[in-house]
Amino acid sequence: MIKRVYFDWAASAQSGNPSSQHYEGKAAKKTLEDARERCATILNVPSHTLSFTSGGTESNSIAIFSNLMRPGKGRIISSMAEHASVREAMLTLEKMGKQTGLITVDSAGRVTAETFGKALFQYGDVRFASVMMVNNESGAITDISSLNELILRQNGQGNKAPVHIHCDLVQAIGKIPLSISDMGIDSASISAHKIHGLFGIGLLYLKKPQEVFYSGGGQENGIRGGTENAHGAAALATCLEEYAGTQTVLNNYSLAKKRWKKLISSLSMIKRCTLIPEERTADDDSFSPYILQAAFKDIPGEVMARALDDLGIAVSTGSACSSSSPERPVLLAMGVKENLRIEGIRISQGHSTTDEDIDTLIKAITEVLKFL
Amino acid sequence: MIKRVYFDWAASAQSGNPSSQHYEGKAAKKTLEDARERCATILNVPSHTLSFTSGGTESNSIAIFSNLMRPGKGRIISSMAEHASVREAMLTLEKMGKQTGLITVDSAGRVTAETFGKALFQYGDVRFASVMMVNNESGAITDISSLNELILRQNGQGNKAPVHIHCDLVQAIGKIPLSISDMGIDSASISAHKIHGLFGIGLLYLKKPQEVFYSGGGQENGIRGGTENAHGAAALATCLEEYAGTQTVLNNYSLAKKRWKKLISSLSMIKRCTLIPEERTADDDSFSPYILQAAFKDIPGEVMARALDDLGIAVSTGSACSSSSPERPVLLAMGVKENLRIEGIRISQGHSTTDEDIDTLIKAITEVLKFL
Repeated sequence: MIKRVYFDWAASAQSGNPSSQHYEGKAAKKTLEDARERCATILNVPSHTLSFTSGGTESNSIAIFSNLMRPGKGRIISSMAEHASVREAMLTLEKMGKQTGLITVDSAGRVTAETFGKALFQYGDVRFASVMMVNNESGAITDISSLNELILRQNGQGNKAPVHIHCDLVQAIGKIPLSISDMGIDSASISAHKIHGLFGIGLLYLKKPQEVFYSGGGQENGIRGGTENAHGAAALATCLEEYAGTQTVLNNYSLAKKRWKKLISSLSMIKRCTLIPEERTADDDSFSPYILQAAFKDIPGEVMARALDDLGIAVSTGSACSSSSPERPVLLAMGVKENLRIEGIRISQGHSTTDEDIDTLIKAITEVLKFL
Repeated sequence: MIKRVYFDWAASAQSGNPSSQHYEGKAAKKTLEDARERCATILNVPSHTLSFTSGGTESNSIAIFSNLMRPGKGRIISSMAEHASVREAMLTLEKMGKQTGLITVDSAGRVTAETFGKALFQYGDVRFASVMMVNNESGAITDISSLNELILRQNGQGNKAPVHIHCDLVQAIGKIPLSISDMGIDSASISAHKIHGLFGIGLLYLKKPQEVFYSGGGQENGIRGGTENAHGAAALATCLEEYAGTQTVLNNYSLAKKRWKKLISSLSMIKRCTLIPEERTADDDSFSPYILQAAFKDIPGEVMARALDDLGIAVSTGSACSSSSPERPVLLAMGVKENLRIEGIRISQGHSTTDEDIDTLIKAITEVLKFL
């Protein structure tokens, strides 16, 4: 190959801007489009339905704010247990004069066909609903397909629900067996860094193209502006291949479940420990075996988390995205009592968590309980 | 140190989420805040005025959409030669019912005190103006301080202009000597990947905190939601240290100017070449010595760019962010004639461009002109 001389620094320093038409640009574009194809293959969706974004928060906001571009009425609702990025987007919609509403959740943080049906009936004019699949505080899994089926039944028409269902899959992808195509959803959010990817990259699935609130420089087919992060996209594709393939998810799920069963059984024997929700058992498949919320009597969650941190163990008091706020809005929506909300800590495992890690955690909790 | 056991995978895979309160989270937070301090030192602004974003496009959009949160009237204007990310944001504001307006530019794409004054007078109710410092098509430099002084003179009051001036510094940082504090601007955008940084990270400077359109999970003091990209931020800080320090900028500027003088002088001797704007000379300090727009008679820019690409040289036909669109809105705003708009190519150099690269480029252009 001839030596290349680069005179397109205004587009990007030498790594190449995927929207540029020269060799370097085309090489970056190929990296980007290959990454999209690879993600599409693993997720089993057409590649044109996938746009790379800066992460789960932006994917949620693009989907939700597209409502601002749709003329006519129609209410936008979300579950009471959504991630802060969705909660904030709903507040922004309200400020912009849109009608919004809430879907109540059960004591696990789950939207059920019943609570969803109630919201649809109560409001009567719903056109968009945001419902996360795996609750990031409790691990509860919402059966998204059942919500879609409910809409179809209520309307007794074709195979497309007249309500746009947006699904935050951030805690589900690579963790829980799922099929985006079969779930009957219209859009979905995925974050790379939750599955070993880089910060600053994620995916938005959009079943059909739609006008977005802001398209910036028009990249990603007008869905997400800003120079495309081709390397981040390629790394995300690799993570999906590594962790989100059907068989891998099933294998890891079964291992995670085994470890979680051990943890939950051990915690259940600790008198001062209350699982949140209390009815959660070691065998319940309606929870993700990657997330557990638990409270320890008379020990504020923050104190417990700090004590464990001192013993070398990282747990959290709720979503990192709202950990600076003392409120626990998701637990509140689940109807968790105040003392348990204060005492709640979130324990979440990953693909490389080991049986020994579980032992270490249980031992450390037992240790802390002796002194606190 | 004791062996750490990580049970916060729902916040992030093991690299640590800067908003988490445990050891891993605090380490990531420290990386992030150190990066902010380092950026602030180089840019000579208080660190609390800097928020990390996903890049220039998002920085522009956060600044511009914050207007949607401000009650009351007041027009939002932008120059006719802004980057696509600003142009699109203005269109979105219009769709949301905001009053917008345009500032005309001179034949170089520059906002002058005259065109700015005219816009302020004509509209009478301007509260926000977006003006880029270095035009990304022509390289023309707008004297931002003069615009601020004009507002102050017109109003004969304090030292703060009653119009918020937002400045896109994407093509200026690390290239042109500047002082954010002295320019009298209220907000500014910086992109990392234009100065050897990673894709997907940038900075928004905000002189004063303000309510933004969407704060997601509330990260970056509520200015920009989404898990903070601590590593990208650290890499950006390193790039700023490497390229944006006052003395480095001056040194590189003088080297770049020497190379550009050579290029411009050579092109001026080619009969079929017209510089855009035509009055640009090799010695004019009101243009960035990193960007040049030139047209070659009877050769559409795309053809020229492809021919040069075949010879191993990457140039572009305008901003990568609008290179898929055949229009050249910035050249149009500059009053460039249709044939020159079609024929225009953008040549932009960087810090590692050499004298030999300039020779190779001139030789290649001469070669292409023999056959086309």
